[in-house]
Amino acid sequence: MEPLLKEIRQNPMLWLLVFVPVVFAAESLKPGAHTLLFVLSVLAIVPLAALLSHATESVSAKTGDAVGGLLNATLGNLTELVIAVAALRAGQYMLVKASIAGAIVTNTLFMLGASFLLGGLKQHVQEFNHITARLQASLLFLATIALLASSAVAKVDATADATFTGKLSVGLAVLLLMTYGLGMVFSLKTHRELFGSAEHAEDGEAPWPISLALATLAVVTVLVALVSEVFVESVQKAAQTFGITPAFVGFIIVALVGGAAEMASAFSGARKNRLDLSVGIALGSASQIALFVAPILVLLSYVIGPAPMDLQFWPGAVVMMLISTIAVSMVTSSGRSAWFVGVVLLTVYIIFAMTLYLLPPRAQ
Amino acid sequence: MEPLLKEIRQNPMLWLLVFVPVVFAAESLKPGAHTLLFVLSVLAIVPLAALLSHATESVSAKTGDAVGGLLNATLGNLTELVIAVAALRAGQYMLVKASIAGAIVTNTLFMLGASFLLGGLKQHVQEFNHITARLQASLLFLATIALLASSAVAKVDATADATFTGKLSVGLAVLLLMTYGLGMVFSLKTHRELFGSAEHAEDGEAPWPISLALATLAVVTVLVALVSEVFVESVQKAAQTFGITPAFVGFIIVALVGGAAEMASAFSGARKNRLDLSVGIALGSASQIALFVAPILVLLSYVIGPAPMDLQFWPGAVVMMLISTIAVSMVTSSGRSAWFVGVVLLTVYIIFAMTLYLLPPRAQ
Amino acid sequence: MEPLLKEIRQNPMLWLLVFVPVVFAAESLKPGAHTLLFVLSVLAIVPLAALLSHATESVSAKTGDAVGGLLNATLGNLTELVIAVAALRAGQYMLVKASIAGAIVTNTLFMLGASFLLGGLKQHVQEFNHITARLQASLLFLATIALLASSAVAKVDATADATFTGKLSVGLAVLLLMTYGLGMVFSLKTHRELFGSAEHAEDGEAPWPISLALATLAVVTVLVALVSEVFVESVQKAAQTFGITPAFVGFIIVALVGGAAEMASAFSGARKNRLDLSVGIALGSASQIALFVAPILVLLSYVIGPAPMDLQFWPGAVVMMLISTIAVSMVTSSGRSAWFVGVVLLTVYIIFAMTLYLLPPRAQ
Repeated sequence: MEPLLKEIRQNPMLWLLVFVPVVFAAESLKPGAHTLLFVLSVLAIVPLAALLSHATESVSAKTGDAVGGLLNATLGNLTELVIAVAALRAGQYMLVKASIAGAIVTNTLFMLGASFLLGGLKQHVQEFNHITARLQASLLFLATIALLASSAVAKVDATADATFTGKLSVGLAVLLLMTYGLGMVFSLKTHRELFGSAEHAEDGEAPWPISLALATLAVVTVLVALVSEVFVESVQKAAQTFGITPAFVGFIIVALVGGAAEMASAFSGARKNRLDLSVGIALGSASQIALFVAPILVLLSYVIGPAPMDLQFWPGAVVMMLISTIAVSMVTSSGRSAWFVGVVLLTVYIIFAMTLYLLPPRAQ
Repeated sequence: MEPLLKEIRQNPMLWLLVFVPVVFAAESLKPGAHTLLFVLSVLAIVPLAALLSHATESVSAKTGDAVGGLLNATLGNLTELVIAVAALRAGQYMLVKASIAGAIVTNTLFMLGASFLLGGLKQHVQEFNHITARLQASLLFLATIALLASSAVAKVDATADATFTGKLSVGLAVLLLMTYGLGMVFSLKTHRELFGSAEHAEDGEAPWPISLALATLAVVTVLVALVSEVFVESVQKAAQTFGITPAFVGFIIVALVGGAAEMASAFSGARKNRLDLSVGIALGSASQIALFVAPILVLLSYVIGPAPMDLQFWPGAVVMMLISTIAVSMVTSSGRSAWFVGVVLLTVYIIFAMTLYLLPPRAQ
Repeated sequence: MEPLLKEIRQNPMLWLLVFVPVVFAAESLKPGAHTLLFVLSVLAIVPLAALLSHATESVSAKTGDAVGGLLNATLGNLTELVIAVAALRAGQYMLVKASIAGAIVTNTLFMLGASFLLGGLKQHVQEFNHITARLQASLLFLATIALLASSAVAKVDATADATFTGKLSVGLAVLLLMTYGLGMVFSLKTHRELFGSAEHAEDGEAPWPISLALATLAVVTVLVALVSEVFVESVQKAAQTFGITPAFVGFIIVALVGGAAEMASAFSGARKNRLDLSVGIALGSASQIALFVAPILVLLSYVIGPAPMDLQFWPGAVVMMLISTIAVSMVTSSGRSAWFVGVVLLTVYIIFAMTLYLLPPRAQ
């Protein structure tokens, strides 16, 4: 427990862990205070995500390269996955889909934009390996297309073709997972040198002992799952209070909360003029959402959901995901960044958020 | 006055200034001859735009780097702005929006395409700085996305959600102007070296004395405003005579007329094998339309228009703007051009024009 | 005849020529066996396409550079053209349009994806000339935009605006053919060094004597035309039997069958680590479909079709063509490939095929 306590003392973000017991207490005492529960659960998930991330990295550092890399890649978006599973069980498919779309958009526009801005405030022009970045951006674009193909191509009647949409989504999910598996072989086995720099954790953080890491992984995953239950229960009513829609909550709030830990790493890399790290985290995490988290949720919906979930996104989400990945591909193709590039990426993100706030998609 | 007269003697485009008094005379004598007035006002605006451009450059050359650069950047699309304000006052919002969209498409496809073609007829292969071009193309793409985000994302009922659309457009306008302001800081202060070559005027043109330049700026702006009134009044009826729509007029004619002066500079640069200059003018001018002219017009519509104008573009305009900026990004990413690249860019422009001529957007 | 027989002995694909007489025999004996006739005609077209390709290359090798290059470029997609003409005569416009769209998507995603995968299984990382590839990808993107502009921009009533659509399509066809002509001047005359490597045939294949080549060209074109008649007649009923639509047949089967010969060359180049050849074949062939085959078919429809064909594609086809060309542009911009890039391109292709299989476009 020593390294864990030391970590908590040093990292102010982890002080938010105090909200974990608070949220459970509040739920017992005031189960109807949805807005309070919503805010508390958000505050509690952030430090848990950070712990989860550190524990995953420690486990992967100990288990050796291949298994460790696999673990790290697979558990990298564990927080998003656990929150989405809670929403899936509650049948809130709009929230689930919005959080998938939002994670891709947030990881590209927001995470990369803020990295460029933070790094650019310290360095005049930052360079990064544009060959690797272009390869990663191409893979992200293709992964996003693969995820969106059926939504973009199909003009489906919402009612009549439900069986077709279901079949298509399952086929798509299986294909995406197969591609993800081959991608693991590619990035961890045959071409690991291309992805090397992005996998490593921060220099400053010593890995934990394996037993502590595994225990933390298990305990914190359960805690995230429990807090996510509170979050999903409270979010709909809290959203009504604030006048916001499930789409906005999923797209913006879940994506920011779920990605907080990765963002901390990406921003830290940018400030240390290691933009390769930031670009790798941002693009890798977004690819993983498209190729792993989304199809897993479709398949899980047949087991734990009240009804099968398909992969049809509302048109605005399709447009936002495509634009984000094209933008990232352009922005990273020069291998250079400066603060204003970050500002414009963030502006596009804010505009997307504003549009979604004022003009939510129709209920499906 | 000496330098002004000398300029007029040397530059055949300025001989068209004779049409300025002619258009006012014609309006007094034959106020109903709409087609004639339309043609005359177009012929009168072209040389005024060229004078405006030269006067702006002279003022900015005299006032020192930072203020001069700001002036040059802000007044660079003054002609487009003045014409659009006249259309705004007359409540012709389709014309205004079409001229915004058209300016972006014309500055990219037509200005760049003709530059590549003209330059390529003299040089076998022309090279330009692809790092700077890529950065500028990325910024243009992001600026265009920011402008279009709400049109692309929102599936709005034309009637029901007018208040939402209005709110969104104002928010968008404020964000775009803030981004524009930060862009000024970026291009004029922190990273001016990246944009240096594109800001300078032609070598051959000596700047005017400051008093002459300021007087020209003031007088010509008033003249452009007056001629634009005639233009906007006559255009609708003239368009009916020719069987063309306000959308076509705004998209093609206003954009070509308003950008004539910049095009002259860009083409001259291309013929002198200084493609960096041409690319900088084309991409910079298009970015400025998206980040400065468009939001200013939205905000002005609350003051001088008969009703607030929003930033919702018709779907065809969204597609054309997005495709143009993606095309430009691809074409400039190699840092090389040859005549056929120009031909294909111009072909796409002609196809857009032809489509708009034959299949105009529905009335809004 | 000696070289032809030697070629047939050496090339197992040509052994399929045995199906050419079989298909004619089957048609006389069992004219109602649509599924059988469909399968046999597909099997017969593949070796004929390979012969056609070799004969074209032999003629162009003998007739000297300029004329030969022109012939090679113009006859390169002869098989697709002949099949489409047969479909045109039968009035199966959905099949024609689907085969145009499918040829572009198949030549980019499938041909390039399989080349990257096959080459990547032999070589760790393959490099190719990214300057040339970017230029070719830009030209392909612009050609595709030109082809799609009216479909993407126009929101046409299927019924009311038929005359407008017709005019637009003819204008578009003429523009595309003019651009194609200028492109020939560019690639064969003024800038042939940029395209040199992609034009040459395989080293191993000796050109045939000119008389044999011309005779083969004539005879095989007639045979392809005759087999295509059987193919088009049988395909609709066979498709019903298999439960697939004309869109799927055109998009996937015609495109794969018609491009079999070029694919053989592209794959062979990739395995020999000559990716420049593969990229040149894939991008060049796709550009030719957009700029030459598609407009020729529109113009031919006025002569041989039961009614004029327009160039309006269904929205899914527009999306697939745009996404394919953007994807290829991104993937080739780094000038490097590895096996996983091929896997992801193929995945996107499979997803498009799956979507089209499960969710065909509405009948036009």
